[in-house]
Amino acid sequence: MSPTKNDLFIKALLKQPIERTPVWMMRQAGRYLPEYRQVREQAGSFLKLCTNPELACEVTLQPLRRFDFDAAILFSDILTIPDAMGLGLYFTEGEGPKFSRPITCAADIMQLPIPDPCLDLAYVVDAVRLIRKNLQGSVPLIGFSGSPWTLATYMVEGGSSKSFQKVKGLMFEQPLLMHQMLDKIAQSVAAYLNAQIEAGAQAVMLFDTWGGLLSSEDYLEFSLHYAKQVRALLNTEQGGQRIPTILFTKGGGLWLEAMAESGYDALGLDWQTDIGQARSRVGHKVALQGNLDPVSLYAQPAVIIEKVKTVLEKYGTGSGHVFNLGHGILPDINPEHVKAMVDAVHHYSPIYHRDAS
Amino acid sequence: MSPTKNDLFIKALLKQPIERTPVWMMRQAGRYLPEYRQVREQAGSFLKLCTNPELACEVTLQPLRRFDFDAAILFSDILTIPDAMGLGLYFTEGEGPKFSRPITCAADIMQLPIPDPCLDLAYVVDAVRLIRKNLQGSVPLIGFSGSPWTLATYMVEGGSSKSFQKVKGLMFEQPLLMHQMLDKIAQSVAAYLNAQIEAGAQAVMLFDTWGGLLSSEDYLEFSLHYAKQVRALLNTEQGGQRIPTILFTKGGGLWLEAMAESGYDALGLDWQTDIGQARSRVGHKVALQGNLDPVSLYAQPAVIIEKVKTVLEKYGTGSGHVFNLGHGILPDINPEHVKAMVDAVHHYSPIYHRDAS
Repeated sequence: MSPTKNDLFIKALLKQPIERTPVWMMRQAGRYLPEYRQVREQAGSFLKLCTNPELACEVTLQPLRRFDFDAAILFSDILTIPDAMGLGLYFTEGEGPKFSRPITCAADIMQLPIPDPCLDLAYVVDAVRLIRKNLQGSVPLIGFSGSPWTLATYMVEGGSSKSFQKVKGLMFEQPLLMHQMLDKIAQSVAAYLNAQIEAGAQAVMLFDTWGGLLSSEDYLEFSLHYAKQVRALLNTEQGGQRIPTILFTKGGGLWLEAMAESGYDALGLDWQTDIGQARSRVGHKVALQGNLDPVSLYAQPAVIIEKVKTVLEKYGTGSGHVFNLGHGILPDINPEHVKAMVDAVHHYSPIYHRDAS
Repeated sequence: MSPTKNDLFIKALLKQPIERTPVWMMRQAGRYLPEYRQVREQAGSFLKLCTNPELACEVTLQPLRRFDFDAAILFSDILTIPDAMGLGLYFTEGEGPKFSRPITCAADIMQLPIPDPCLDLAYVVDAVRLIRKNLQGSVPLIGFSGSPWTLATYMVEGGSSKSFQKVKGLMFEQPLLMHQMLDKIAQSVAAYLNAQIEAGAQAVMLFDTWGGLLSSEDYLEFSLHYAKQVRALLNTEQGGQRIPTILFTKGGGLWLEAMAESGYDALGLDWQTDIGQARSRVGHKVALQGNLDPVSLYAQPAVIIEKVKTVLEKYGTGSGHVFNLGHGILPDINPEHVKAMVDAVHHYSPIYHRDAS
């Protein structure tokens, strides 16, 4: 594989000296881009887009043609693993993901297989390989997975949820069973991410979208514990290169100290967390990724530029910051506003890296 | 008015010695009670229930007949103030509150009146007076209001929202206009709470339901600043009694230090925040209210009891803790489970107050 020309992203995650702050965006391949919507329509469904390596590759590369992003991220869904476990993922218009065979009893958990990514999730592994090849070493490729806890919420609820009554019920009333399920999911996630790494992912990110819905003690026991287990199972050396790891718990700002001890190189921050305070709390241990309020991108470019400058200023000088939103981009954002954000990071971040020159 | 026989709640908020931890529950008068659903049906609509002092009084008292709660809370809606400002509050089945005349331009903000609670919100003031009378001094009565920021979100969005695009757009692009609106709302909230205090509310609580959707700096500037303004305008002495004040920002666990400096006697905690850590951070300045995960109440009583014990143990010894959920009770909880929670607080909390005896 080609060596990567622009390795700012990797270096920032490893807190090595760089000349400016790298930037990418959660859901950068997505609905806000007309060219994405066109491919999505051709594919016929979101799931067909995810399971077709050529189309997944195409939409992964689209945002890089428009914007000077410093990383690509695999286009996929976080629910590929439960689908490969046999739960039957499907999407209904306006209602989000659903499973036709959710987890309802102990027997379901006992019977859960640990998927072999090269067989059961070959379409993802193939997509990673294809994207990496097509990137031609321009920027690094990020692989990802949902966190064990977040996957478990969908697997037990059968889809999205507001109160997480079923999965919390299992956790409160049958904690051992919950642990058995999470252990299986963690093994599956680790195997999945290792397959992505082997296929060419140069960094991996764990999305813990629903960890923030837990109490502190439940977060540590049922979410972070399994993020750690995943991390311990990852092969983070590949072809002589370090594969940096990122942990993102939405709503996890209270628990950064514990997250910083979990073995990940970097923590993703939601927009509520002050990145300057986060750096004071944990920045000597980990890099930080984030954290512009995604809703800011509705504002006029002049406002966006000021908000970018605020995030950069809050993080301050030195390496260890990857600029990003605090959550995925919203589907109706004007792409010109994304350009304003990306260009502002390029323009205003070098002064924070002067010591590196 | 009768002196209050059970003043554990007031004393806990003021951190005075008590013999056990007081307990009440957000939305304790509500849909989980069959007797509430009956009155609600008689009233014909939620809004008619709120605007009829006799019915509001009846549902306020219902949970106290079932459970040994240590406080009553006025039954009302947080959107009474914008309705009194002329925005036209209505409810649609399954979609939550809406306004027929939301704020859409600078002129709307300029023309916003500051309601006179005794004229424009007389039904609330009358309800407070009636409830206080009917309580016959059994337990203290809590008055409440939505926070200026939270009210502003509904007023600009025209109802509930997911991304808060409109109100954040106003905040990002026309911050001075946003401040003008928040200033008017803060004055209205203070007048409203003062009228409740004068009518008999013995403590008041500000519900900042949506403050947690803001970035740290926006929270301080657009939410907490106006919570402070409200606090500064409150008459917290009434008939020789101190009227304690409580500030609750859902998702505000990151900002407790700033909240503890805002003049309120107590902070409400959501269930994500560790109450032991919260006490270490701010407990020398304020009392704390909370914070059992509301979803715990689906679990069997034996599990609920253990969870109650954990919250009590985390807070630890001494006064300054009011037991509550971390958010409102969910509408389909079994009332027997509420009883298990309340009784557990009564049974297991005295050991944390031994020095007081």
